[in-house]
Amino acid sequence: MNRCVVGVDLGGTKIYTALADSRGRLAAEVRVPTGAREGPEAVIGRIAETVRRVMREAGVGPGAVAALGIGSPGPLDQAAGVVYNSPNLRGWINVPLRDRLREATGISVFLDNDANLAALGEFYFGAGRGSGNLLYVTVSTGIGAGIIIDGRIYRGAGGGAGEAGHMVISPGGPLCGCGRKGCLESLASGTAMAVRAAELVSAGRGKAILREAGDNPAALTAASVARAAGAGDPEAAGIISEAGAYLGMGLANLINVLNPDRLVMGGGALEAGSLFWDSMAGELAARALGPALGDVTVVKSVLGGKSGLMGAVALALDSCGKRLPKE
Amino acid sequence: MNRCVVGVDLGGTKIYTALADSRGRLAAEVRVPTGAREGPEAVIGRIAETVRRVMREAGVGPGAVAALGIGSPGPLDQAAGVVYNSPNLRGWINVPLRDRLREATGISVFLDNDANLAALGEFYFGAGRGSGNLLYVTVSTGIGAGIIIDGRIYRGAGGGAGEAGHMVISPGGPLCGCGRKGCLESLASGTAMAVRAAELVSAGRGKAILREAGDNPAALTAASVARAAGAGDPEAAGIISEAGAYLGMGLANLINVLNPDRLVMGGGALEAGSLFWDSMAGELAARALGPALGDVTVVKSVLGGKSGLMGAVALALDSCGKRLPKE
Repeated sequence: MNRCVVGVDLGGTKIYTALADSRGRLAAEVRVPTGAREGPEAVIGRIAETVRRVMREAGVGPGAVAALGIGSPGPLDQAAGVVYNSPNLRGWINVPLRDRLREATGISVFLDNDANLAALGEFYFGAGRGSGNLLYVTVSTGIGAGIIIDGRIYRGAGGGAGEAGHMVISPGGPLCGCGRKGCLESLASGTAMAVRAAELVSAGRGKAILREAGDNPAALTAASVARAAGAGDPEAAGIISEAGAYLGMGLANLINVLNPDRLVMGGGALEAGSLFWDSMAGELAARALGPALGDVTVVKSVLGGKSGLMGAVALALDSCGKRLPKE
Repeated sequence: MNRCVVGVDLGGTKIYTALADSRGRLAAEVRVPTGAREGPEAVIGRIAETVRRVMREAGVGPGAVAALGIGSPGPLDQAAGVVYNSPNLRGWINVPLRDRLREATGISVFLDNDANLAALGEFYFGAGRGSGNLLYVTVSTGIGAGIIIDGRIYRGAGGGAGEAGHMVISPGGPLCGCGRKGCLESLASGTAMAVRAAELVSAGRGKAILREAGDNPAALTAASVARAAGAGDPEAAGIISEAGAYLGMGLANLINVLNPDRLVMGGGALEAGSLFWDSMAGELAARALGPALGDVTVVKSVLGGKSGLMGAVALALDSCGKRLPKE
């Protein structure tokens, strides 16, 4: 095999590592639990072990890997290669992930946040192929975005661009995890749907949703709401369609400001079903300005759980000069 | 004089034209009324006349002008050089301004919208000098934005980027000129302040504001509100501080998504005074995420009414290969 790269998608629960050739074709891949509780050094050691494993499986020697791309939950300093205080990696405070991983593997390492790399992955290998200006929005426990302009990640002045989850959509709205009120994330994320369900249950309603959580209020999730809605419960359907409408408003704001030609939607909350998608799409169409709406194609991620990994591969290829062609 | 360029700022009320050298220094400038009522052909003829005038005044012959940049109220198709149906140029429907002006002057013409060019003008010659990623937001009768990334106007897929005035900030809010509800423009523009004042007056209140409009409800403007607030009227102060707070939310949304290092504020509504600015700045600081807030410097336009003109000059210089250095 000619020169190849390694991509790593570091998540709060799993490490997903693959070895790819210069066209992004995977030769070997492996997933292991992150074990974030054991602390950064143990996790970095485990990542290095997955790198050695995919190299071994692909029959590739140390000199053949040109670069390693890694996506991590943020906030992080992309330029310095440091993960700040990630809520998804407890106990990680100012970890110099890039440099430590280079020391542990002997390979040049390039770090970026997970939403940016998912956007890059979709752009080169997924639902974003052929686009010029791509916006990727992921809706799961939180809401994040990655922006691709002319084939490159747009990071902004300090690497913080794409914090779409903290746009204010309803100033007097619910409390967000960031401490502010009415952010998109507090209205339209999976967490927001679970919180709305818990509020209903506290008020003595939402019986059908509670049943889906095994009658345990502490177990209420967006999935409980989705299952109840699927079974025809109108309260659950109300929660989902309201969250979808708020998401549509947030997406319309992004479309009005950025005028992308492709909007790729990812994240687990899309599994809330077609009601969520339809409500989002309806509000988006009502709120986006006509010309910008006409310019954009809204599609679901095709890479799904692999978008971050493929973005890490793309980052590595890009960083070592193997700039991928736009298809 | 060596090769030079012409910049034109076409507005609803005036045509502002200047001849500049390759470093953007103005050698001659002229302002004439637009006379938009007389229709596109008359206006294009008048623009061509101002071009001849500045060339004559600067003692420059036909061959010495390398390019002409012109900013126009939108919506327009930058790539095709066509002004669509501009609310600020009544009767202009699909006017091929670029090609008609090239025919009328014999000079290569480059067209863009006024907000984009004001952003470019501030970037090269004003409050944006030395920045990397600049966001320019103008607040007057409407709200618009121009985005500069790496020294270039970011236009998006169809030239429609920067429609910040139509971000939803309060879904159940007042009706916007675009037909939707709760857009930033309906909450924080000069027009919004005038509408809030008219609502107060209709309800039998707002006496102090009405007095500033000569006791004529039809003459209520943002300036009436500003004067009443300046004289200590609490109702006027309430209107201004509420509009300022909504503006701060909109700016925070843009900062969270774009992470600029410079935010330049322009437009007549800033003349509503320090209460408007302080309310905006307070809400912005409360709503923007910490790292992005730390990355951005918020400043007032230094070019004021000249920002669009200087942007047209910069566009012309840029378009003919005299790419300006970042200072």
